Amino acid sequence: MTDGSKMSWSVWILIVCLGYLPPTVVNTTLRLRDLRETMKKLNISAYIIPNTDAHLSEYIAPRDARVAFMTGFTGSAGTAVVTPVKAALWTDSRYWVQADREMDCNWDLETDGFIRSITDWLIREVPEEEDIGFDPFLFSVDIFNSYSANLAPAKRNLKSLPENLVDKVWSDRPAIPANFLTRLPDSVIERTWPMKVEHIRNVMKENPYQPTALLLSALDETAWLFNLRGNDIPYNPFFYSYTLLTLDEIWLFVHMERLTPELKEYLNASCYLAHCVQLIDYGQERNYLKNYVTRLGVRVWVGTEYTNQALYELITPKEKLLTSEYSPVLTTKAVKDQTEQRILREAHVRDAVAVMQLLLWLEQKVPEGRETEITAALYVDECRWKQKNSRGPSFQTISASGPNAALAHYSPTNETARVLTEKEMYLVDSGGQYLDGTTDITRTVHWGTPSDVQKEAFTRVLMGNIEISRLIFPDRTRGVNVEMLGRRALWEVGLNYGHGTGHGVGNYFGVHEWPVGFQSNNIPFQEGMFTSIEPGYYKENEFGIRIEDIAVLAPVETKYGNNFLTFDTVSLVPYDRKLIDTSILSLQQLQWLDRYYKTIRDTMGPELQKQGLKEVHDWMMKHTEPFLQDRVSALGRSSFLLLILLPSSLIQHLL
Amino acid sequence: MTDGSKMSWSVWILIVCLGYLPPTVVNTTLRLRDLRETMKKLNISAYIIPNTDAHLSEYIAPRDARVAFMTGFTGSAGTAVVTPVKAALWTDSRYWVQADREMDCNWDLETDGFIRSITDWLIREVPEEEDIGFDPFLFSVDIFNSYSANLAPAKRNLKSLPENLVDKVWSDRPAIPANFLTRLPDSVIERTWPMKVEHIRNVMKENPYQPTALLLSALDETAWLFNLRGNDIPYNPFFYSYTLLTLDEIWLFVHMERLTPELKEYLNASCYLAHCVQLIDYGQERNYLKNYVTRLGVRVWVGTEYTNQALYELITPKEKLLTSEYSPVLTTKAVKDQTEQRILREAHVRDAVAVMQLLLWLEQKVPEGRETEITAALYVDECRWKQKNSRGPSFQTISASGPNAALAHYSPTNETARVLTEKEMYLVDSGGQYLDGTTDITRTVHWGTPSDVQKEAFTRVLMGNIEISRLIFPDRTRGVNVEMLGRRALWEVGLNYGHGTGHGVGNYFGVHEWPVGFQSNNIPFQEGMFTSIEPGYYKENEFGIRIEDIAVLAPVETKYGNNFLTFDTVSLVPYDRKLIDTSILSLQQLQWLDRYYKTIRDTMGPELQKQGLKEVHDWMMKHTEPFLQDRVSALGRSSFLLLILLPSSLIQHLL
Repeated sequence: MTDGSKMSWSVWILIVCLGYLPPTVVNTTLRLRDLRETMKKLNISAYIIPNTDAHLSEYIAPRDARVAFMTGFTGSAGTAVVTPVKAALWTDSRYWVQADREMDCNWDLETDGFIRSITDWLIREVPEEEDIGFDPFLFSVDIFNSYSANLAPAKRNLKSLPENLVDKVWSDRPAIPANFLTRLPDSVIERTWPMKVEHIRNVMKENPYQPTALLLSALDETAWLFNLRGNDIPYNPFFYSYTLLTLDEIWLFVHMERLTPELKEYLNASCYLAHCVQLIDYGQERNYLKNYVTRLGVRVWVGTEYTNQALYELITPKEKLLTSEYSPVLTTKAVKDQTEQRILREAHVRDAVAVMQLLLWLEQKVPEGRETEITAALYVDECRWKQKNSRGPSFQTISASGPNAALAHYSPTNETARVLTEKEMYLVDSGGQYLDGTTDITRTVHWGTPSDVQKEAFTRVLMGNIEISRLIFPDRTRGVNVEMLGRRALWEVGLNYGHGTGHGVGNYFGVHEWPVGFQSNNIPFQEGMFTSIEPGYYKENEFGIRIEDIAVLAPVETKYGNNFLTFDTVSLVPYDRKLIDTSILSLQQLQWLDRYYKTIRDTMGPELQKQGLKEVHDWMMKHTEPFLQDRVSALGRSSFLLLILLPSSLIQHLL
Repeated sequence: MTDGSKMSWSVWILIVCLGYLPPTVVNTTLRLRDLRETMKKLNISAYIIPNTDAHLSEYIAPRDARVAFMTGFTGSAGTAVVTPVKAALWTDSRYWVQADREMDCNWDLETDGFIRSITDWLIREVPEEEDIGFDPFLFSVDIFNSYSANLAPAKRNLKSLPENLVDKVWSDRPAIPANFLTRLPDSVIERTWPMKVEHIRNVMKENPYQPTALLLSALDETAWLFNLRGNDIPYNPFFYSYTLLTLDEIWLFVHMERLTPELKEYLNASCYLAHCVQLIDYGQERNYLKNYVTRLGVRVWVGTEYTNQALYELITPKEKLLTSEYSPVLTTKAVKDQTEQRILREAHVRDAVAVMQLLLWLEQKVPEGRETEITAALYVDECRWKQKNSRGPSFQTISASGPNAALAHYSPTNETARVLTEKEMYLVDSGGQYLDGTTDITRTVHWGTPSDVQKEAFTRVLMGNIEISRLIFPDRTRGVNVEMLGRRALWEVGLNYGHGTGHGVGNYFGVHEWPVGFQSNNIPFQEGMFTSIEPGYYKENEFGIRIEDIAVLAPVETKYGNNFLTFDTVSLVPYDRKLIDTSILSLQQLQWLDRYYKTIRDTMGPELQKQGLKEVHDWMMKHTEPFLQDRVSALGRSSFLLLILLPSSLIQHLL
């Protein structure tokens, strides 16, 4: 822990505004001045800067980190707006403290992240009839419509500026990576790319609106369709690309120099038939799309969540357009095939080895007083790299002790990293990329004596995780309609958390893979989808708790009905039992825990033995002792008489 | 039970299609022929008939029952579509069996009620470029947009026909009622109409988009604003009306002859100031609105759920329009003031007397074998009429025995009514209009020996009711995000139900009062809202179960947090204990039941004594015996030793 982080942030803010910058803050005065000059020339009264790229990616390449460049804030979600006299950043509660730490006092932090809050602010700051500029490549159709619906009635004009204004003042903007793309080996795929193309074309043919083409903009759409991977975005094996798939042509827009001759052959790039991929240079997509829509009788299908306004606005007149929230590639990809399910489970077994190694190592090392948030993060990364098929971490490890963990998405830096001690709770949220799958898991531990509040909060977060995990529900239920189970035990005592409850994960893909999850714009659950389950609780300036597992949607037999699903947890690491107050768990919850721990033993036992990790095996066995079985059997032997006095509901629970 | 209902419906359908009509079916051949002739003259390839009125009412006056006239189907929800060769009705699962019983074989029943299903059908049945007619008065803005978004890309044209085609062929269409409107007495209001007008104008002034006028289309908006009531719609004290409220004018569009001189004085109808109501004849609203929007600098606020397309399309250009899902009148009305809360609770106390009288009477009379679904419905209506402030039932009583109860919204007719017996379960869903409130309650009972399946299903429905009722959740949580608790215990064994889980209720108003409830387009819960909680289960051809209570959203103290709410049940009638399998209830559920039963005793005891109903009082006491207290105290006295052997979670439950 450095000296810097001991000083309270309010003191720093005061110092910043007197002209001194704390080490965590970026000085944005000059770049803001440059941007405002550019705005003035274009007669723009405000400029909106979303934290995304032309593919509406959640995680972006350094060259697209325009919000970080302009504001200093490096979190993954946020929107900046600049006027001639004001500059403000909107982000969600995961990032408020981080934004405060990283931004200088040119910037105001706005804590209501809804678009309505941004447009209300714009209506206050920008006079009627004046122009608000935006880059149409960075606005999805849906986002543009939301801004427009709020600003148009108030007579503020949204002005599309295809040349990005931040890029104009960003002299040392990073270049595009030059590495070759790679194809997935046959061992990890069930469906070849021609099979996928044929399937998607069939979906198009079955659509009553008879689309003739499908435009794929999200980076994982093209990568999935062709079983290709790249490395343009840190931790995400994506590459800049678009695809325009018609019923008899395939146009792939990509940086051509990044395809080896073998890949060109793999893609049948030398012919022009229905199963030949025509390679076009990235950047030409607007021209090709514009030409395509001049053809007679064509209709282009786009997903409005991942298509940018710059492409969308080319598809006119209206009858040449067909929209759905998500493209059929995204909805098809959401349901993993049998091979994907199997290898994603296997990746989680190896990943659990790495996480157990970390937890064991911390138990041994923390008492020595030399480990920090950073050394712990490095250690788990190292453990993952040793596992088969590893491709490194799937996101920057969140390794957070004590008050740092109250920042839900904190990652340690030299300035902020705390020494790990037996006096603080510790939260580690990490994941791996493997050739066969992407993982994401969070565990929260305490190496000393947790307070009553910490224990209660941890147990209630765990109850949330279990209540979702053991739920039985009809096929096609929406996550948003059941995610309250992750919060209910916290609500009961007046607690809650400010982030979502889970998201899809990919097969060597995005660690946040849409459109699966528990949010209102996620699609209904189906067998074969994978999602995280991750309730939490954060007490500002004190501690943070999150328990995250990945689970697959699996069919379940019920007494009377068919077509019911439940979650089958594929993350295989026990929870810190010191933090579990079993007296507030229900019997069903204890039973679920014991079943889960038995699965861990049955699966991880052989794996740890195979890898020759005896010490980890012992650690795993110790931490997966059943909670219930012994006590129930003790009860069974001795107390038949009392049972008849118990309420019958309790008796039922014991049987 | 008549002979007719013994014959299976598939046999009837066969007979119908051979030219014979069963007694429950309407012959629609001639009226369909007439409608198709009208369509032909207008060159329309399809005509859409929604089951609503120009105010988008859920329950409609006989003169607006166009779907019932055309199809024979009399349920409250449905859309009919007619082409030159086909005729189809879409309705939800509550009404499938009823629709089958009531429609002749000119009509196909479509069971997927989403607009997408209707437009997919239209795209199949209507060739490209042809016209699909609709009455813009019967389409809300939102509904119109949904149809248009699906049909426009498929090149099917929606053609607005302000003169309704069904009305043209409906020679004996009922007239508008001639009764005078009434005003609420001072005893039941806290906010006079000028106070309400001022409040709404303040909401308008605070809106950042600066609307200058508010258009009120829903019938309960105008009735609420002026504290007026009418009787245009059976069971609903509404009257045909619109209001255009500007910052300094009030235009009330109403059938003028229905206002007494006293009412005109009450409304300050003789002046033109900001607090004077200018009375305009109903039917002039389009002219006035059209004129108003020609004024400079005006902007009209409309709620898109309850404004019809015929008025909406007059508000041009776009900057003269401000939309939200619901008008500020609906969102304000949703939160009852202190007086409304108090009197709505009081109405429920008197209402519970009537329902208890029914249940006692049935216990005594059913064994004699002479009571039917109809006599039971008449009896409960009669009991309600005897209560203070009664204004009759709030909807047609659903009184359903055995298989009839599997039709969630069945009401008995002479042809279908079953004799009540000890061999069948019986469901009664009824409510009252009182000058001080509107009630709605469902109880399901069995006078003989229920089967195991009936008992399990009933108990699981009850668990759903309790799990919602006892939930503690943050202020402004949405009903749709917690309603799964009503289903969870059913899901666990593979059961479910096909209707919503609850809806708002009014103060002498609609028994389904939007926008409160558990559906996705309901607004977030706040203290002072009232909602029903009504899970159910329906086993086709065998039985139906529903347990419905009204509850008010009330603040609750929690261990750590503020601003948490829970439900406080205001319906006060015990459940049939013969149907409750206590062995599958959790201890918390049993405790909730005991607390609820104590509230019933504490509240209904004095009321029943005051009304001198000793026999009902005894019945109530017998049916509200605690489930738990005796057993727990017995346990407490005798078994300290065993407790130490029990899992600690169970011990906790017992303390």
